[in-house]
Amino acid sequence: MLAFEEREYRDRIANARKRMAADGIDVMLCSNPANMCYLTGYDGWSFYVHQLVILTANDNEDPVWVGRGMDANAAKVTTFLPDENVISYSDDYVHSKVKHPLEFVGGLLKERGLDKAKIGAEMDTFYFPARSLLSLQRTLPNAEIIDASTLVPWVKVVKSPAEIEYMERAARICERAMRTAVDNIHTGNRQCDAAAEIFRTQIAGTEEFGGDYTAIVPMLPSGEGTNTPHLTWNDKHFNNGEATIIELAGCYRRYHCPMARTVQIGKAPKKLDDTAKIVVEGLNNAMEAAKPGTTAEEVEQAWRQTIERHGIKKESRIGYSTGLNYPPDWGEGSVSVRPGDKTELQENMCLHIIPGIWMDDWGMEISECIQITPSGGRAFADFERNLIVK
Amino acid sequence: MLAFEEREYRDRIANARKRMAADGIDVMLCSNPANMCYLTGYDGWSFYVHQLVILTANDNEDPVWVGRGMDANAAKVTTFLPDENVISYSDDYVHSKVKHPLEFVGGLLKERGLDKAKIGAEMDTFYFPARSLLSLQRTLPNAEIIDASTLVPWVKVVKSPAEIEYMERAARICERAMRTAVDNIHTGNRQCDAAAEIFRTQIAGTEEFGGDYTAIVPMLPSGEGTNTPHLTWNDKHFNNGEATIIELAGCYRRYHCPMARTVQIGKAPKKLDDTAKIVVEGLNNAMEAAKPGTTAEEVEQAWRQTIERHGIKKESRIGYSTGLNYPPDWGEGSVSVRPGDKTELQENMCLHIIPGIWMDDWGMEISECIQITPSGGRAFADFERNLIVK
Repeated sequence: MLAFEEREYRDRIANARKRMAADGIDVMLCSNPANMCYLTGYDGWSFYVHQLVILTANDNEDPVWVGRGMDANAAKVTTFLPDENVISYSDDYVHSKVKHPLEFVGGLLKERGLDKAKIGAEMDTFYFPARSLLSLQRTLPNAEIIDASTLVPWVKVVKSPAEIEYMERAARICERAMRTAVDNIHTGNRQCDAAAEIFRTQIAGTEEFGGDYTAIVPMLPSGEGTNTPHLTWNDKHFNNGEATIIELAGCYRRYHCPMARTVQIGKAPKKLDDTAKIVVEGLNNAMEAAKPGTTAEEVEQAWRQTIERHGIKKESRIGYSTGLNYPPDWGEGSVSVRPGDKTELQENMCLHIIPGIWMDDWGMEISECIQITPSGGRAFADFERNLIVK
Repeated sequence: MLAFEEREYRDRIANARKRMAADGIDVMLCSNPANMCYLTGYDGWSFYVHQLVILTANDNEDPVWVGRGMDANAAKVTTFLPDENVISYSDDYVHSKVKHPLEFVGGLLKERGLDKAKIGAEMDTFYFPARSLLSLQRTLPNAEIIDASTLVPWVKVVKSPAEIEYMERAARICERAMRTAVDNIHTGNRQCDAAAEIFRTQIAGTEEFGGDYTAIVPMLPSGEGTNTPHLTWNDKHFNNGEATIIELAGCYRRYHCPMARTVQIGKAPKKLDDTAKIVVEGLNNAMEAAKPGTTAEEVEQAWRQTIERHGIKKESRIGYSTGLNYPPDWGEGSVSVRPGDKTELQENMCLHIIPGIWMDDWGMEISECIQITPSGGRAFADFERNLIVK
């Protein structure tokens, strides 16, 4: 069931250890499910309870998966780890007010002589809540615990050929899902019925390969709701004369290809039509700029200069690194395409460039998921890049 | 767009304030999206960035929603809050290494004279990572910050008539989704194609009302994978002679009715058939015991005594409170049906009773989502409660 060859996981682990060494980290606690999967292959919807991968600096030690008893078999099935590296805590640690799984983890580290270690924890990810830190500190009072939320994300920011192939598969699913969305947004159809068909397409995938759940559900703000990006659907009908923003992804074995488009039913208001042309021009310019050696902020600048020529200002970032992920986000938390981010792009980084415009009572989004190549950002998916008028 | 009448939100807020007063809490920071929604109506897939609701002890103050700029319109649209109680931080706080949204929140509390307050934070939920605590502590060094993860969950543990109606709607969707699952698990069908049809059914809902996304995707361990509960699907075919566990929910406006069933293709092995009968007997006994005044551990005892009579032992909890929720969990984090949980059940609590059996190379689950009534636990959904053999 491994998604990649064991060798690829071992390369990833070696790369993570290089960064650990640079930061003087003795042991990483990776609780972000994307990072757990990246390093070991672990895949299951068990991240609603505490679980993590322990990665020591010792090249001779395989990572250790720690989680709930009932999920240990999932770790044995989905990872390359030897069974003795799958360690589970008893069920009375779950949602307990008196015991905490990070005390159990602290105990494991103590047994391994790591009670005075410098520990990297993913402190700004959703999967390492405040109480995890407090429990670990209490159990290992002599350890130094530092925030290493982005250590693994910076390892995974450049994709391997095998990962690019998974992104391609995700793109094929993305194209189908977006086509389904466009086809199902029409007057009289309920938003939920359109969303239902989108989900079906995302999960069924293609004849050759199936789809996986996406880290974010399809977002479908419609009509007045287009003034904000993160509304989902309801059971109202789509209305003639109104626009709907669709943001969705295709996902193949946890790898995402996201995309946003805006669909107008009936004649588009001039401001929407005009803005769409500007957004596409800005997006194209940003993509063209996205070459190895260019910085993330220069990509944003290419976008901003385009729209400012047309008198539009936009404050939020226009993109981020994407790929392997789990709910609640398909962003990786490393590169942000915005002023101040001086990350030099490298070949085979994958970014979602999503320049959204949200005004007081309307908005629009047109985006692409791109691969950084020497000739600029290459869109993974092939889908008409404009305002879609039906 | 409010899911409930404003009066109901105000009742909830008053009940939360009673618990705050009992614990001496001056201000609650609710970052769990379920609690944000419960108190204000806020609903959007924006919880992948920091956001929260500030609830002070002052009865004359409406809650304050704090989140990212682009999501402020969503707060204005989906909550009853006056616009001035919707406060957003600038986009450079997002995924920043140098700024943190909780510093912004700390600043707001300071402005309101709450810099020495006793602050309740949801420290063991995924939406209050360790760095949120550190940022808040740094910004408000004189505040006392305590863990109040379960304060709101204990308010919402007893459902109102309007909430029960939403659970009923979720149950109608759950029945359809489970029927779809059973129909689509057959030899030669791909797991992803069955999952695709399940998703479609969940989201389309019924003719009268649409479905919402569930806090957990359908889980579908099949064949050997049934020895662990939280595997999702892949693109392999279902095989004759193998069992598949389905755990899914129907969801209506964020209210969940979960259910698990086990489907066997072809003749069931005797151990599976025998175990299923025992599990159903134990589940029925647990449901019968689930009356107001009974404790959660007594419900578990009714289950355990039944299976122990048949020589089966099971270590994990068999149920939890459910209802309004967001990914990654539809459990509420309050009641756990297991030894040691002395919660007295009350009428209109809603529990998911899910006694799973996972052995070394096989397993099974049959569950019900129940409403506590004077005559015992009433299953919300109506679906054959046995091993399903096809």
